[in-house]
Amino acid sequence: MSPMSDPLTPTDRTKVRRLPDRGTYDRAIIDEVIDEAYVAHVGFMVDGQPRVLPMTYGRDGDVLYLHGAVGNAMLRASIDAEVCVTITLLDGLVLARSAFHHSMNYRAVVLLGVATKVDDEEAKRHAFEVIVEHVMPGRTQVARASNDSELRKTLVLQLAIEEGSAKVRTGGPIDDDEDMDLPVWAGVVPLRLTPGEPIQDPQQTQVLPAPEARSPI
Amino acid sequence: MSPMSDPLTPTDRTKVRRLPDRGTYDRAIIDEVIDEAYVAHVGFMVDGQPRVLPMTYGRDGDVLYLHGAVGNAMLRASIDAEVCVTITLLDGLVLARSAFHHSMNYRAVVLLGVATKVDDEEAKRHAFEVIVEHVMPGRTQVARASNDSELRKTLVLQLAIEEGSAKVRTGGPIDDDEDMDLPVWAGVVPLRLTPGEPIQDPQQTQVLPAPEARSPI
Repeated sequence: MSPMSDPLTPTDRTKVRRLPDRGTYDRAIIDEVIDEAYVAHVGFMVDGQPRVLPMTYGRDGDVLYLHGAVGNAMLRASIDAEVCVTITLLDGLVLARSAFHHSMNYRAVVLLGVATKVDDEEAKRHAFEVIVEHVMPGRTQVARASNDSELRKTLVLQLAIEEGSAKVRTGGPIDDDEDMDLPVWAGVVPLRLTPGEPIQDPQQTQVLPAPEARSPI
Repeated sequence: MSPMSDPLTPTDRTKVRRLPDRGTYDRAIIDEVIDEAYVAHVGFMVDGQPRVLPMTYGRDGDVLYLHGAVGNAMLRASIDAEVCVTITLLDGLVLARSAFHHSMNYRAVVLLGVATKVDDEEAKRHAFEVIVEHVMPGRTQVARASNDSELRKTLVLQLAIEEGSAKVRTGGPIDDDEDMDLPVWAGVVPLRLTPGEPIQDPQQTQVLPAPEARSPI
C-alpha cells in the first residue's frame, strides 16, 4: 500500500537478463502493474509439468491473494508449492519499417515464491474483500458480504511480493539506420482495455446506478 | 486455418474438471481465441520450477509459433520440453448482488505439448511472417522482410495445436434466489482491448497512411 516500499532485491531467478534496460525491481512500477491489471497468469506444476491458468487476484501491501473453489485442483496443487505469477498489460503494437523490429509496448510483472494457504477465517474474509475491491473498488460496501458457508467453499492462497521483477517497453520502433527512409508507416498503435456500457441483469427490476470500472493507471 | 477442423480430443491433462459446462474442445472456439488475442502466457520449467512469460505468437493451421532472440534463456529452456501456452481474453466484469458470486467473463485457451525448434530456414521465415501477420494483418506486404542475419538471430519454436481446451464464461451474474431483490446493481461491465489513435514515429518525415489494428473477433 505504501508508495515508499523498497525495491525488490534481484535474485538469480529474477535478474532480468534479456534487454536488462527494460527490467526494474521498483515497487512503485511493480505495484502499478499489479493494481491496474485484472488477470494474473499463474504457473504451477502438475506431475512435473508446467501449467498456466488465468486467475483474478488482489493485492494488500506486500501480499498477493489468489482464490478459487475449494475443489479447484490447480489451486490445491499450488499450496506450499513454488508458483510463478505473471501479470501483463499490453500497451501497444510497435510497428517498425522492418519486420524484424516489430515489437509490443507492455508492462509485465513476474513474481516467484511459495504460495501458502490462508486458513484463519478473518484473514480469509479480508483476502476475499481485497480481491473484490481489486476488481471493482467500493464493491464490498454495496454487495452482500460472504457468509461462513461461502468462505468455507473458498480456497485462498497468498504469495509474498518479495522475489520478482517488472519489465517495461515504451516508445516507438527502433529501426536500423539504413531502413529509416523506407516508405513504410512506423509508429505505435496504442491498446487499452476499455470498459463498455454496463449491461444490467435483466432480472433486476429496480433502477440502480451502474458502477464504473476503475480507470487504467 | 480450416473452419472444419475436428475438435481436440480431451486427455487426462486437458479434461475440464471445474465447471465442465464452460469447457470446450471445439477448434473454432479455440482458434477464435488464439486469433483474437495478442499475447500468450507461456509456462515452462527452469530447474524444476514453473516460469511464465508473456510472448507474441502466430498460428498457421494446427501449429502455434513462438519466437524470440537466440539468446533468450527462457525460449531455449522450452526446446523439446513440455510447455503450457495459455491465451486469455477478458471480456467483462461480472458484478453480482453478493460478493461471492462476482466473476469475470472470459475466453481462455490452454495448449499443452512439447515445443520443438524450427530449424529449416524457409520454415523459420514462414513462421516469422505468420507472427507478424498475426499482430498486424498485411504487414508483411509493406515492411522490409527479414534478412538472413536477422533470421539467424531469431529462435523459433513450434507447438502443435493438438492437446488443449478452451474455457468460456459469458452472460450475467448468477445470484442466489434469496439475494435477487437486494438493492445492489448487478450485471456485466464489458471490457475490450481497444486501439487508440496511431502515433507515427516522429523520425518519419513522409506522410503515410497509418495501419489499423484488426478488430476483435
